[in-house]
Amino acid sequence: MPLQEGDLVKIPQFQRTIAEKLVGKNKQMGAQFLMNVLVEEVGELSRALRKGTTDEVAEEVCDIIFAVTSIANLRGVDVEPFLKRKYIDRPLSEISREWTDVSWR
Amino acid sequence: MPLQEGDLVKIPQFQRTIAEKLVGKNKQMGAQFLMNVLVEEVGELSRALRKGTTDEVAEEVCDIIFAVTSIANLRGVDVEPFLKRKYIDRPLSEISREWTDVSWR
Repeated sequence: MPLQEGDLVKIPQFQRTIAEKLVGKNKQMGAQFLMNVLVEEVGELSRALRKGTTDEVAEEVCDIIFAVTSIANLRGVDVEPFLKRKYIDRPLSEISREWTDVSWR
Repeated sequence: MPLQEGDLVKIPQFQRTIAEKLVGKNKQMGAQFLMNVLVEEVGELSRALRKGTTDEVAEEVCDIIFAVTSIANLRGVDVEPFLKRKYIDRPLSEISREWTDVSWR
């Protein structure tokens, strides 16, 4: 069943929910631990892209978003204004100016 | 100036905006290129956590969210329902069951 517009999760709402559940635990674990988790998840995404299903790719993408959001929470930064300024409000030409595939060289 | 509640970006809205700007370009570049971008950004986040400012950490977190959202767009998956099911709707005890810091051993 497709989600209704009103049900859709806002980025700050996602970040706050993760913070409420995990900030204490993340403070115990620290940034290095979260970097380890992130790198592990990046490896899993790479594997899913080569061998996995679409759902497995989606799961790994979400695990990475979760890991980096936890890092943002640990440092006390809100990601939404940065995402908005850098990727929503800027034109494509600025975002992709340095977006060059080296395999084309 | 703090954002008003109505201005906050919803996760699907962010994903759709990125898709509108970049899906054609991403298809040209492909998943391996986007994985390269992701790994580069993970390295930059690691550096920012060691030596950077809070704003630099936030920038790198956003670049990673952008890279993995682009990968999701390339594979045609909506991340919001996966994020919601896996991290918003589940209790902490399930999320962190296997969340163990090896440096404690």
